[in-house]
Amino acid sequence: MAQPGDSKQKLRDICRIAARVFYEKGYDGASMQDIAKAVGLTKAGLYHHVGSKDRLLYEIMNYGMDILDETVLQKVKDIADPGEKLRQTIIGHIDLIVRARDLEITVILHENRSLKGALRKKINARKREYIQYIENLIAQVQEQSGGRVLLSPPLAAFALLGMVNWLYQWFQPEGPTKQNELSQGYVDYFFRGLLGSVPPA
Amino acid sequence: MAQPGDSKQKLRDICRIAARVFYEKGYDGASMQDIAKAVGLTKAGLYHHVGSKDRLLYEIMNYGMDILDETVLQKVKDIADPGEKLRQTIIGHIDLIVRARDLEITVILHENRSLKGALRKKINARKREYIQYIENLIAQVQEQSGGRVLLSPPLAAFALLGMVNWLYQWFQPEGPTKQNELSQGYVDYFFRGLLGSVPPA
Repeated sequence: MAQPGDSKQKLRDICRIAARVFYEKGYDGASMQDIAKAVGLTKAGLYHHVGSKDRLLYEIMNYGMDILDETVLQKVKDIADPGEKLRQTIIGHIDLIVRARDLEITVILHENRSLKGALRKKINARKREYIQYIENLIAQVQEQSGGRVLLSPPLAAFALLGMVNWLYQWFQPEGPTKQNELSQGYVDYFFRGLLGSVPPA
Repeated sequence: MAQPGDSKQKLRDICRIAARVFYEKGYDGASMQDIAKAVGLTKAGLYHHVGSKDRLLYEIMNYGMDILDETVLQKVKDIADPGEKLRQTIIGHIDLIVRARDLEITVILHENRSLKGALRKKINARKREYIQYIENLIAQVQEQSGGRVLLSPPLAAFALLGMVNWLYQWFQPEGPTKQNELSQGYVDYFFRGLLGSVPPA
């Protein structure tokens, strides 16, 4: 349902509100009627915009991946040094998870059992592409460091993604640890784990 | 619903089957009728054993924490050296996540939004106790290493738990990476990240 301009914005608004309803009631527990009501549309109006409940879930996940693209990957695309690019990607991804605004979308993105068939494959392909990007960066960083490969790029990528994506389970922005302390601590920890030491910035 | 002997085993059997139904249909999407049918009980019989749907969810999570206790913590309780104890705890926790048998229980344990009120508090207290155990071990390992604290024990504990708990999202026991390679790689990666180097075993 890629749509230009206003239509795209409308779809994103629907996604954001629907994500909240799914988050609260569960995908199976939330009806299209519940979502229409929350969005301020008739049920027919909602179906007109999103096609079906499956498709709506897909659109929410796709929106989640768009947010990752727009707020993380676009910002680092011109960085040439792989170490710095990886560092900024980690900081951006942490920022994405920690920002409360998109919490529901982030959570739904991780619980993709409800999505079936072709739509699930499409989302998994987008996730796979991001993981591949991280793995490639890691391999470049390892090569640049010139040392022995201490952990394979796929294992390192998933260790990183696990650490960062798990933040939504526990990190409280109002808690004792500030976000920049968290980011700095986790970036350095990751590079030490990967290379044995933190490369100079 | 702590019950001795046979009753406890019966409850665990119910938990294991119910976890599978919740995993497939979602907590809100699965009815007590669905679960009774899967377990091979009448609906009244199921209510007799578990009290309510909420309580059943709580029993599943509690069972998940029992499994952690029995299969991870009991095995390491007599290890005196904090480094070795932490190493074996990580290996045991990875084994727990990777074993397909309890997959549904593990997943449900991580998605505890459906549980409310006092029952949720009880489960969170058990989780908190485990996290505290990990944090204490980490602090002891840092102290023993005598170096500067590179990452605070809470941040290190959650980095570790994120990495390990995330395994259920991607690790395939039949895939290219064998479990012992994974465990060894992740233990060493964690210690390097924590201390800058892997302590001798």
